[in-house]
Amino acid sequence: MSKKTLVEAAFGRATDRTPIWFLRQAGRYLPEYRAIRKDIDFVGLCKNPALAAEVTLQPLRRFDVDAAIIFSDILIPCTAMGQHLTFDTGHGPILDHPIRSAQDLFKLRHPHVEKELGYVGDAITLTKKSLRPDQTMIGFAGAPFTVASYMIEGSGSKTFTEVKRLRYTQPQVFEELMELIAAVTSEYLLMQVKAGADCLMLFDTWANQMTAEDYRDLVFPHMNKVIETVKAKWDGPLIYYPGQSMEWLFELNGFHGDVLAIDWRTRLPRAIALIENLGLNVSVQGNLDPQSLLAPESLLRANVRKVLEAGQKARGHIFNVGHGLLPHTPPEALLIAIDEVRKFDKTKGSSH
Amino acid sequence: MSKKTLVEAAFGRATDRTPIWFLRQAGRYLPEYRAIRKDIDFVGLCKNPALAAEVTLQPLRRFDVDAAIIFSDILIPCTAMGQHLTFDTGHGPILDHPIRSAQDLFKLRHPHVEKELGYVGDAITLTKKSLRPDQTMIGFAGAPFTVASYMIEGSGSKTFTEVKRLRYTQPQVFEELMELIAAVTSEYLLMQVKAGADCLMLFDTWANQMTAEDYRDLVFPHMNKVIETVKAKWDGPLIYYPGQSMEWLFELNGFHGDVLAIDWRTRLPRAIALIENLGLNVSVQGNLDPQSLLAPESLLRANVRKVLEAGQKARGHIFNVGHGLLPHTPPEALLIAIDEVRKFDKTKGSSH
Repeated sequence: MSKKTLVEAAFGRATDRTPIWFLRQAGRYLPEYRAIRKDIDFVGLCKNPALAAEVTLQPLRRFDVDAAIIFSDILIPCTAMGQHLTFDTGHGPILDHPIRSAQDLFKLRHPHVEKELGYVGDAITLTKKSLRPDQTMIGFAGAPFTVASYMIEGSGSKTFTEVKRLRYTQPQVFEELMELIAAVTSEYLLMQVKAGADCLMLFDTWANQMTAEDYRDLVFPHMNKVIETVKAKWDGPLIYYPGQSMEWLFELNGFHGDVLAIDWRTRLPRAIALIENLGLNVSVQGNLDPQSLLAPESLLRANVRKVLEAGQKARGHIFNVGHGLLPHTPPEALLIAIDEVRKFDKTKGSSH
Repeated sequence: MSKKTLVEAAFGRATDRTPIWFLRQAGRYLPEYRAIRKDIDFVGLCKNPALAAEVTLQPLRRFDVDAAIIFSDILIPCTAMGQHLTFDTGHGPILDHPIRSAQDLFKLRHPHVEKELGYVGDAITLTKKSLRPDQTMIGFAGAPFTVASYMIEGSGSKTFTEVKRLRYTQPQVFEELMELIAAVTSEYLLMQVKAGADCLMLFDTWANQMTAEDYRDLVFPHMNKVIETVKAKWDGPLIYYPGQSMEWLFELNGFHGDVLAIDWRTRLPRAIALIENLGLNVSVQGNLDPQSLLAPESLLRANVRKVLEAGQKARGHIFNVGHGLLPHTPPEALLIAIDEVRKFDKTKGSSH
């Protein structure tokens, strides 16, 4: 039976080719996705297993990628905890009744994850039926702090004022909210594993909105606890995205995950050297600037090659963009990037 | 005659106290500022020397700070280059006719800076009359890339798609735009020096929206050229803010400035160690999280002290927030921060 290329690379084992997938590979840049979204809103799509599976599989019909990531949103679990979620066109997610006091926290529920979020598992099970044995089914969740940020602010934020206010003026409420989210997130990820996920990813997009010290003391422990809890019952790999800054690598002492997703703003060779210096035993994922998919073909190919060359120095390398694909991405550019990855694999021989 | 504390620290010379000021110390968090803004729009205020000077001086009447920074905006020079600037409440700046082609670029003008932007110099001259001899008058500009970003996008952006598109598909237009802005910025800063500025600051808020390589090759050289041009005719200090990420410190080889403003997201001890490792001969400014001004007094004092202790290891240290004050900042919190800085100076003796 053929092994899953992405899982092998995640654990730092030799693979016969460099695994490749794209953050947000299912989405608005694909006309077939827009066709489905014409008739259903975003949250409705996430909650419909048949349609979510269909949308998840769309990029796999066009592109020779090594993984599918379930189509969903990091805020979906909040809907089961008692906040109503909508997406305001052009303004991102809105969660009603933002959590800013002990009373607000008290109104949240610890949901029965399998019953109330089972549609995500169902979509994973459905999707997996269409994957080749060497392809990886990725489940995901937001890391506790990033989810908490939205729950506290009630929407995206530039300044995270309410998050900071809660952290400074009601630290106990902040801590208990983080604990609740961490517990729900662990169950949510294990439910996805049970449904068929071969690999998990934790997105901590806003982690770098805390000071480095607060990240270390108040953010990292909850995130790492989620991984520890999940890993106690599962032997698959977990990818962690710690946000834009390389700075947080310094705070990952004792990290339980297997792969760090590196943002495109960070130079991959430097991140890999730092990972080695810090003694972190992880593979890396990334980190093409998604906007470089707008570049002329020769420049795009050169940029892909730079990422591949840097990745050679890592324990294992999963090729990806360093942040989600954007709606204006020309799908043809992904074909070029994939072709360049396959060409690179051939020049360096069949194993590395 | 008493020396200017901030200028001395900027050059790494001993001072009898730690200079302190606050990014965006004049602004919406002060009721006396809001009173003036009731009757005049933001751009109108910037273009009125008497009112701009008044607003610049407001924080100095409340707080024992070591510097005034002229009240203005980094996009003011764009108005003289041919773009109309407005501020849409809650949505930030809007520049009309965004620059996305050679034709757009061709329509821009290289203004006569003294004639067309002289009101900024007039406001500086007026402000300076009210400063003590030991207080520093700071002039400023946006660094070329950050200004270019707004000129190309026409507004703030989360994704900088048009900037990347121009950089990838019309690199010559991008380069010529950067050259034009750099030339205008040099003249604009020298005009401010002539009017009385004792220190200059260059804001490169969006620098980290380019990949590290593009920053090194396409962004840094124009910024550094501005400093070189200004320094050829002036012997004062220049502070550079390279954006959120510490990563850019690696790309500052040959930097002509005197001080690096460190964002609050970066750990100051680590930044200072890296500056030394890289052989950069600069002082540092920063880097209290402006949101920690929301914290209870004891926590705020502890945070201020951590910044001060870290600063001891630098060539010179200017205490500041690591990003501009926010509208909800309680003015009283600044009094506490300043008090903590003065107390720290006393415990460590009269010179360091």
